[in-house]
Amino acid sequence: MGEINIKQLASELNLSAATVSRALRDSHEISAETKARVMEMAKKLNYEPNPFASSLRHQKSNTIAVIVPEVANNFFSLAIKGIEEVARAKDHHVLIYQTHESGELESSFMTRLLSGRVDGVLISPASHVASKDYFQKVSEKIPMVFFDRDHDDIEGVKITTDDYESAYSATQHLLEAGCKRIGFLAALDTLTTGKKRMQGYIDALKDNGLTAEPELIVTQCENNEPCRSKIRYFIARQKPDGILSSIEELALPCYYVCKELNLNIPKDLKVITYSNLSHAELLNPSLSTINQPAFEIGTEAATILFKMFSKRWYDPNITISLKSNIIKRESTQA
Amino acid sequence: MGEINIKQLASELNLSAATVSRALRDSHEISAETKARVMEMAKKLNYEPNPFASSLRHQKSNTIAVIVPEVANNFFSLAIKGIEEVARAKDHHVLIYQTHESGELESSFMTRLLSGRVDGVLISPASHVASKDYFQKVSEKIPMVFFDRDHDDIEGVKITTDDYESAYSATQHLLEAGCKRIGFLAALDTLTTGKKRMQGYIDALKDNGLTAEPELIVTQCENNEPCRSKIRYFIARQKPDGILSSIEELALPCYYVCKELNLNIPKDLKVITYSNLSHAELLNPSLSTINQPAFEIGTEAATILFKMFSKRWYDPNITISLKSNIIKRESTQA
Repeated sequence: MGEINIKQLASELNLSAATVSRALRDSHEISAETKARVMEMAKKLNYEPNPFASSLRHQKSNTIAVIVPEVANNFFSLAIKGIEEVARAKDHHVLIYQTHESGELESSFMTRLLSGRVDGVLISPASHVASKDYFQKVSEKIPMVFFDRDHDDIEGVKITTDDYESAYSATQHLLEAGCKRIGFLAALDTLTTGKKRMQGYIDALKDNGLTAEPELIVTQCENNEPCRSKIRYFIARQKPDGILSSIEELALPCYYVCKELNLNIPKDLKVITYSNLSHAELLNPSLSTINQPAFEIGTEAATILFKMFSKRWYDPNITISLKSNIIKRESTQA
Repeated sequence: MGEINIKQLASELNLSAATVSRALRDSHEISAETKARVMEMAKKLNYEPNPFASSLRHQKSNTIAVIVPEVANNFFSLAIKGIEEVARAKDHHVLIYQTHESGELESSFMTRLLSGRVDGVLISPASHVASKDYFQKVSEKIPMVFFDRDHDDIEGVKITTDDYESAYSATQHLLEAGCKRIGFLAALDTLTTGKKRMQGYIDALKDNGLTAEPELIVTQCENNEPCRSKIRYFIARQKPDGILSSIEELALPCYYVCKELNLNIPKDLKVITYSNLSHAELLNPSLSTINQPAFEIGTEAATILFKMFSKRWYDPNITISLKSNIIKRESTQA
């Protein structure tokens, strides 16, 4: 009977084409029994899903886009590796875009994506955002998954980590190491991610009978020379005895500043940071880190994206949170 | 007279359309005087180049592709920043592809590029290559520039660094620091880049009355656990007193291995490596590096690519070599 299509398959099974289609897509609306019948018949008749599937948008480019703030960041390069592993198994290419935290670039990339260049998007949004309309526009057209970072006023599928809990634990660790005056280097404060990290820090202090003094919270730090000056000014003036850095890029300037100010880490100042730096252990002193499961975030986000392609994912608004891991090293030794 | 085209412009100037077209593209075949006349008339008649230019391939996507082995490598992330800076000024997007040293993935990406997704390609080729036919195929269709790495049997525009000279100088530096038994951690040996670095090492030894013993050259190292075992075996068995690592990824395993074997860097073993690691200074001990001008390689390569788009680049086979810089730190102290 030549190449078989859904309609013929349905007729053989005495089912509607819609039912067969949904069964083949593993829809929850179809019973397991019916699915088994459909699969069996599809196999028997050598039904090839491609001719049908090729009309779906996701068959057009076999490419997915990953939008990240910086590829040079160890967290993102690891997450991208996780994404690539899943994509390779599905025979998809991975395009990478860097926003350098610019919402303008992000918007421009995303708008371009609507032209059908890619089948889906995995995004860790930029922190400098003017309007957020493009998220909505893109997600209406193609499947999109947020990973690591997100905006709480935007709905969608989100794979994050336990930002609140990990910041709370890291602050607790500094307190237990003897710190009494803990500074917080804030970042990503326009994003849920950054807000949760700061709240974890504030609450841990509070639960230990301390107050998060505004002068101990350093905001609007950028990863460049002004940032180092700001941190130098902060350390010299506020004399914190501990620092929780909310991103990797702000921790290493603390090392340089301590050298300049002749301060000893960990004796004079203890430092812990969110980071996936592969050689934190080789620094002088070795650096205590909050390690996010970067690779796993990548594989999880990509796996869900591919489920969205094949319509096997039904929850358009879900946040899945993975657990981070605190690695205590010399920089926070009591 | 409505929207003006090349033909009308040519007729006003009493020139052929071909001449006008070449003048507008700043061709060297057209005299400065004629170019000035054409530009003046184009301005006077409000000639808009876009309707014409839009038929050119390079106007189609306003996107360039960068193909690199690894984004997590500091050299490549800096080079990409340089490329992005030039692309942004030209209102082009930058797509990044990672090959993870796989020639198969590289070939697959490049073939995809032929479908018109991008206007041009900047590539630092993978080291594991089976066939190289795709380089030729792509470069016949769209402008392409090699940066950092290249194959000597493939013609093209190439922006590299002084691989031979820098390896020679680094070896000389180790000799001056007192090393007598210098190991070489080879990589990229299928590429001109790797071959030149090894030759620089060999010649520096020779010029100092030493021979590059085969057992001091470690080849086929991969950046993963087997690599560390191989380096451990090499250091334990061959007892080198100096190591020149030809890529960043092989230098840090030396640090871990020395810790395991209770060897002191630089007392027992001096280490220098090609690297653009931003915090080589913060390692214990601080790491001596051969710094390639990564950002400049990126801007130079991108600038030439844009000249190729506008046909203002005429040398299809040229190698431009930029100078690297040796930064001496504790790891090679006498």
